[in-house]
Amino acid sequence: MPLTPQQEDFSKWYNELIYQSELAAQSEVRGSMIIMPYGYELWEGVQHGLDRRFKATGHRNAYFPLLIPENYLRREAEHVEGFSPELAVVTHAGGKQLEEPLVVRPTSETIIMQFFSKWIQSYRDLPKLMNQWANVVRWELRTRPFLRTSEFLWQEGHTAHATADEAQAETLQMLDVYADFAINDAAIPVIKGRKSEREKFAGAVRTYTIEAMMRDGKALQSGTSHFLGQNFAKAFDIQYLDKDNERKYVWTTSWGVSTRMIGAIVMTHGDDAGLRLPPVLAPIQVVAVPIYRNPEEHTSVLEVLSRLVETLRAAGVRVELDDRDYSPGYKFNDWEMRGVPLRLEVGPKDVQNGKCVLKRRDIDGKEGKTFHAQEGIAETVRQLLTEIQASLLQQATAFRDANIVDVTSYDEFKQVIETGKWARGWWTENSALELQVKEETSATLRCYPFDQPEGDGVNFLTGEKGEQVALFAKSY
Amino acid sequence: MPLTPQQEDFSKWYNELIYQSELAAQSEVRGSMIIMPYGYELWEGVQHGLDRRFKATGHRNAYFPLLIPENYLRREAEHVEGFSPELAVVTHAGGKQLEEPLVVRPTSETIIMQFFSKWIQSYRDLPKLMNQWANVVRWELRTRPFLRTSEFLWQEGHTAHATADEAQAETLQMLDVYADFAINDAAIPVIKGRKSEREKFAGAVRTYTIEAMMRDGKALQSGTSHFLGQNFAKAFDIQYLDKDNERKYVWTTSWGVSTRMIGAIVMTHGDDAGLRLPPVLAPIQVVAVPIYRNPEEHTSVLEVLSRLVETLRAAGVRVELDDRDYSPGYKFNDWEMRGVPLRLEVGPKDVQNGKCVLKRRDIDGKEGKTFHAQEGIAETVRQLLTEIQASLLQQATAFRDANIVDVTSYDEFKQVIETGKWARGWWTENSALELQVKEETSATLRCYPFDQPEGDGVNFLTGEKGEQVALFAKSY
Repeated sequence: MPLTPQQEDFSKWYNELIYQSELAAQSEVRGSMIIMPYGYELWEGVQHGLDRRFKATGHRNAYFPLLIPENYLRREAEHVEGFSPELAVVTHAGGKQLEEPLVVRPTSETIIMQFFSKWIQSYRDLPKLMNQWANVVRWELRTRPFLRTSEFLWQEGHTAHATADEAQAETLQMLDVYADFAINDAAIPVIKGRKSEREKFAGAVRTYTIEAMMRDGKALQSGTSHFLGQNFAKAFDIQYLDKDNERKYVWTTSWGVSTRMIGAIVMTHGDDAGLRLPPVLAPIQVVAVPIYRNPEEHTSVLEVLSRLVETLRAAGVRVELDDRDYSPGYKFNDWEMRGVPLRLEVGPKDVQNGKCVLKRRDIDGKEGKTFHAQEGIAETVRQLLTEIQASLLQQATAFRDANIVDVTSYDEFKQVIETGKWARGWWTENSALELQVKEETSATLRCYPFDQPEGDGVNFLTGEKGEQVALFAKSY
Repeated sequence: MPLTPQQEDFSKWYNELIYQSELAAQSEVRGSMIIMPYGYELWEGVQHGLDRRFKATGHRNAYFPLLIPENYLRREAEHVEGFSPELAVVTHAGGKQLEEPLVVRPTSETIIMQFFSKWIQSYRDLPKLMNQWANVVRWELRTRPFLRTSEFLWQEGHTAHATADEAQAETLQMLDVYADFAINDAAIPVIKGRKSEREKFAGAVRTYTIEAMMRDGKALQSGTSHFLGQNFAKAFDIQYLDKDNERKYVWTTSWGVSTRMIGAIVMTHGDDAGLRLPPVLAPIQVVAVPIYRNPEEHTSVLEVLSRLVETLRAAGVRVELDDRDYSPGYKFNDWEMRGVPLRLEVGPKDVQNGKCVLKRRDIDGKEGKTFHAQEGIAETVRQLLTEIQASLLQQATAFRDANIVDVTSYDEFKQVIETGKWARGWWTENSALELQVKEETSATLRCYPFDQPEGDGVNFLTGEKGEQVALFAKSY
């Protein structure tokens, strides 16, 4: 079934694609979804890409309990206020009412900090660099697959440090790790920046973010890294004996990326024909389709194609042979919809002259189709996959840059936001005015980008001198 | 702090070791524990070993919701009866009481079968071969780290097939996968067999198990594979249109291994000095310790040792250099307690004559210590790690075989069980008599082993002709 075109109804396109490509399936359980094998394999790619970067920067994985005593959450005032409306609560277990209700973790700061308070005693115990791969539950009323579900999968890093500087450096290092993953593995040209007071994490001193632009112009917060100062250290009494024999509170950070990243990949690269997956993360990098008109041709074509598939597999390429009893056209559409980066075709003529056809998913029509010798197929494919990875990033970057508009007045701002673009303008931190802008235009302050222009300018709303440039957009 | 000897109090030894080696830490949350980085890295090894075997046999990972509507569980009568007493229930979410309570999954048969009923329509959709890595909650009153906790991590496979034969073959295939992992990766000589009616999974037609013998002689069920017949297919109306145009119920299986496997590794190989980890799974395979008396020696020794460590790391060996400011003796004990399979030492003399010392964790005292050339260290280490892996399996197999005793009368049986061994004797399936044996001796029927003797014999309890040989033991 053809997808609803993006221009007609982006949201409909998204939902149809998620289900048709079998990234996910609807669940009868309110607010939740089923991550199907194809979607889970994509998530495994994300996990692998992040996990190796976490380990390379000295972090270790651990696992903390799912169910958290309600009183833990109450200890950090802003934290509980932020999460209370979204909590799922276990009141009964083992056939009895619990003395104290247990909350299904919405995030694990509290239970990990409670543990840190026992575990950290001396400056020798610092820094603590932990990460957890886990499921979390936040009760959402309006849900969308991968973007907003009551339960989602993520990783949450939690670290403790002796000094504010070290904690701040860690916070920024992990933002860099996220940006490096997003750009190089997911081919998403994210923008790094700092959140406003209004948009920061409940309990954080400062929140940093990577913001991505979707094909409908909306922003998607794709990963966040929080400098928590001593807020949690004081709430959970995490003190260490320093070299100078004084007891001091630690400084903590937390940072997370979730299955939302799958939504970001879909909406950054997808087109009206379906997904376009970056080769680094694609569960299937190459699909091999035999072209034939009769059983004899089928046999000879399949023999050659199978050999090529084996060669690719041996070279570490994730390749699948589609020998189903469907027409080539049906298969082409099916795999294009699933976003496989490269299609390998062999027909009767190719058998005779030692050739094959490779069709790139990132370039439409005949221009994406090239003829190659069967000889050296692994090298050819590897080269093309590298090109596709770069081309997807380049296309997304061009799209992003074409859709960020500098504004100097509120009228300009409103016009830019109305046309579905991002507005970049001078601003001065002010939660009340930020809320006003949101109420009037639906746009939120996505971040103060690290990349700031030289010189200075006037606040597009107030006309006064601005502090720094901010990015505003409608968002998911 | 030295561990309580196994002979004195095995249970105390176990708990002390788990916490001292930092596999896990106690949590303040009732019934739950914290899996510490060292324990989680061991679990990652288990995950990797199993996951690649699942994928090699055609299974794909997916992810289903944590919270399951209560009515799902009620659909399969035996299943709900088995799990009801252990359920944790979410009654409130998002600040409101839920219309229908949600159960925190104790296992996912019900929610996955509900989905299969939508997903499976035709014989072309079969088989479905799925696996899920997830956390589950079963409210336990008496808990022990890794062996029995209210929340644990596991994988649960769920498959659907067109015929009973295919489902049965799958059930046995996955038992083989588990045994292959246990024997070759974890060096645990598990015994494959079938559970009795009394011990089978709630909702299964037949349950198969791998049973391992711990160093105190108790049995630990280390993995199970269930042939579910059409019980769940009928409860959830999972029908497919067959080639003959008739609608038929599918046949399903499920199978699981959990973080319990960590407990099995600890109690199969551990000794009074601590853990002994099989090299295939050990997070650290080699620890390098410099031996020196003064700063000059420290410098020269460290230079050589660092180079060896780099060589090993480049060869893919998981190696750690311990240059902490502690005595060698302290470090030796510390790493022995953590079960690192091999210790590499370099002292001043070794620097001069190009030698080094390697000490095996699996052989006590001087016999475990050998001298080697620094040249070719990677090959030497690889060879020794292979030997250690084999030796741990061999030791555990010898221990197991020495502690299984054939019995022909109930008196013999009682004596064997009292001395903490396993009794093997002829038996005829009988749940009432099995319960009687359990009440009188605390021993349960662990399994009917696949490996049955030739000929026949008499039931050790009744004196009548037995059906087959069964293994009985006290268990975890």
